[in-house]
Amino acid sequence: MPESPILAVDLGGTKIATALVSTSGQILEQLLTPTLADEGPEAAVGRMIAAIKTTLSESQVSSPAFSTIALASAGIIDVPKGIVTASPSFPGWCDVPIREIVERETGLACFLINDATAAVAAEHRLGAGKGLKNLLYVTVSTGIGGGIIVDGQIYSGSLGCAGEIGHMTIDPDGPPCNCGSFGCLETLASGRAVAREAQKRIARGARSLVLEFVEGEPHNITAKAVAEAAKAGDALALEIISQAATYLGIGMANLVNIFNPEMIVIGGGLSKMGDMLFNPVRRTVADRAFRLPAQSVRIVPSQLGDEVGLLGAAVSLMMSKGL
Amino acid sequence: MPESPILAVDLGGTKIATALVSTSGQILEQLLTPTLADEGPEAAVGRMIAAIKTTLSESQVSSPAFSTIALASAGIIDVPKGIVTASPSFPGWCDVPIREIVERETGLACFLINDATAAVAAEHRLGAGKGLKNLLYVTVSTGIGGGIIVDGQIYSGSLGCAGEIGHMTIDPDGPPCNCGSFGCLETLASGRAVAREAQKRIARGARSLVLEFVEGEPHNITAKAVAEAAKAGDALALEIISQAATYLGIGMANLVNIFNPEMIVIGGGLSKMGDMLFNPVRRTVADRAFRLPAQSVRIVPSQLGDEVGLLGAAVSLMMSKGL
Repeated sequence: MPESPILAVDLGGTKIATALVSTSGQILEQLLTPTLADEGPEAAVGRMIAAIKTTLSESQVSSPAFSTIALASAGIIDVPKGIVTASPSFPGWCDVPIREIVERETGLACFLINDATAAVAAEHRLGAGKGLKNLLYVTVSTGIGGGIIVDGQIYSGSLGCAGEIGHMTIDPDGPPCNCGSFGCLETLASGRAVAREAQKRIARGARSLVLEFVEGEPHNITAKAVAEAAKAGDALALEIISQAATYLGIGMANLVNIFNPEMIVIGGGLSKMGDMLFNPVRRTVADRAFRLPAQSVRIVPSQLGDEVGLLGAAVSLMMSKGL
Repeated sequence: MPESPILAVDLGGTKIATALVSTSGQILEQLLTPTLADEGPEAAVGRMIAAIKTTLSESQVSSPAFSTIALASAGIIDVPKGIVTASPSFPGWCDVPIREIVERETGLACFLINDATAAVAAEHRLGAGKGLKNLLYVTVSTGIGGGIIVDGQIYSGSLGCAGEIGHMTIDPDGPPCNCGSFGCLETLASGRAVAREAQKRIARGARSLVLEFVEGEPHNITAKAVAEAAKAGDALALEIISQAATYLGIGMANLVNIFNPEMIVIGGGLSKMGDMLFNPVRRTVADRAFRLPAQSVRIVPSQLGDEVGLLGAAVSLMMSKGL
């Protein structure tokens, strides 16, 4: 393995992170750029290319080390074709040939992978799941994504888009989902779901401290505001989070029965709620999954935080080369 | 690989099949014995041991060929411990050390695997999924089970009990399940679910041809009787099967989003309904799963029928030896 760092990119719905990452998982230099996905793929990908070029030009490392850019992107990715087919994070994007654009604009090869799939690789190599054989990573943030490690290797399915556990139907008559289906786990347990439920209940007249955290503006309510109100003891906020966490637990129980994994790592913004989220999740898994896989699985928070996508891009590239 | 056949056993909720299976997948001699699981594990396992001994003694093959018995069993199996921990197919059984019993009583080694996991290996080696890398097998009969092939290898999780896709929660407030949870796929789309729904609707006064297939006795209604009535054009039967198939499709859409598999093979009694089952399943997957994995997956009937468990036991044993 070269000692030179890897150029890693994490393309998300709100920000683009570019960084040099050492092979041991140190983030050496990082640049954050807004995605502004609403402006369309050309503008957003253009910003990403500019950020890559800035990171390359500012680095002290000689260029041959960057023969491949490691790009972790949100969305349903067709890896053989190098295309972001669609994503709730990128409204309106359709079949964007992102690998070809990056390769043409930079002159370097591009290794493309879904961001949550990249994240499970990072947790496996550097984080909570070090050395485990069968491991799932679930990111619970605005939406819900997932990544799968099987027998110590990344599993991304026949075209690279496996792991969409946020789009398990949990309630067939549940709320409409951005993916086009109904009652997906994401519609019941994501940050968006928590915020929507609080807005709905408050619009119907429920009393809550939540409004104090958003200057009295119901349309500014976020999952973070609900979590803060819950920490302050607000009954409505506590109930909404407990309900979302129970739905998340139902999703995790499904995964425990399907994968019999050694560990499920939960990351993303909502995982920062700690016990308020993890206790109902663990209790629901114990109640709903079979005894054997439920007793043997550990359900733990991510150890890598917001940098899991960048680290995952770099680690996935290394794993793809057998390193 | 020895040319001698493998002694394979399929231990199910209603019958025990023992057979000699050639390494190319020919079933040479087969013996069927009732399980009578209600009589408890000692009696049932005793019948299985007797069947194994009969099959061994009647065979023309010299004994050294049978250094390992391949046993596929229903239930949640702790493979490292060789124990059937529990199973809806074996009411009341708890932590039965089946591998130890077989090895003690026969003097031979015993390779133990879940029956649906064994089945996916058979479909991969000999059936519908020949040569594919990422493949799921779903058995829809009295209950619903599943098996997983990942990168051409059997995936059975950290303790051997992965693949329990019948126990995905599809509706959190759905009917109680034998597994202790609620609204599992099995409670909505299995043979038991179809029969229960028909009984319930007829008890409430619905008119149906179903009763003609069970000599007018509502408590004798089976999924098979409902299927026969549906084939005869009975509106109630058609509606019940369409509803169960739609739920099955929701489960398959979940698996398509999670695994991005090349193929899902559906076996078990209900798969014999053909288009009546497969059309709503395929339509629901197209409606609910992401476009990319939904367009690339093939959902097909099992090619191996009732012998899939026996063949799977033999194939799994061979795969475990790298053959």
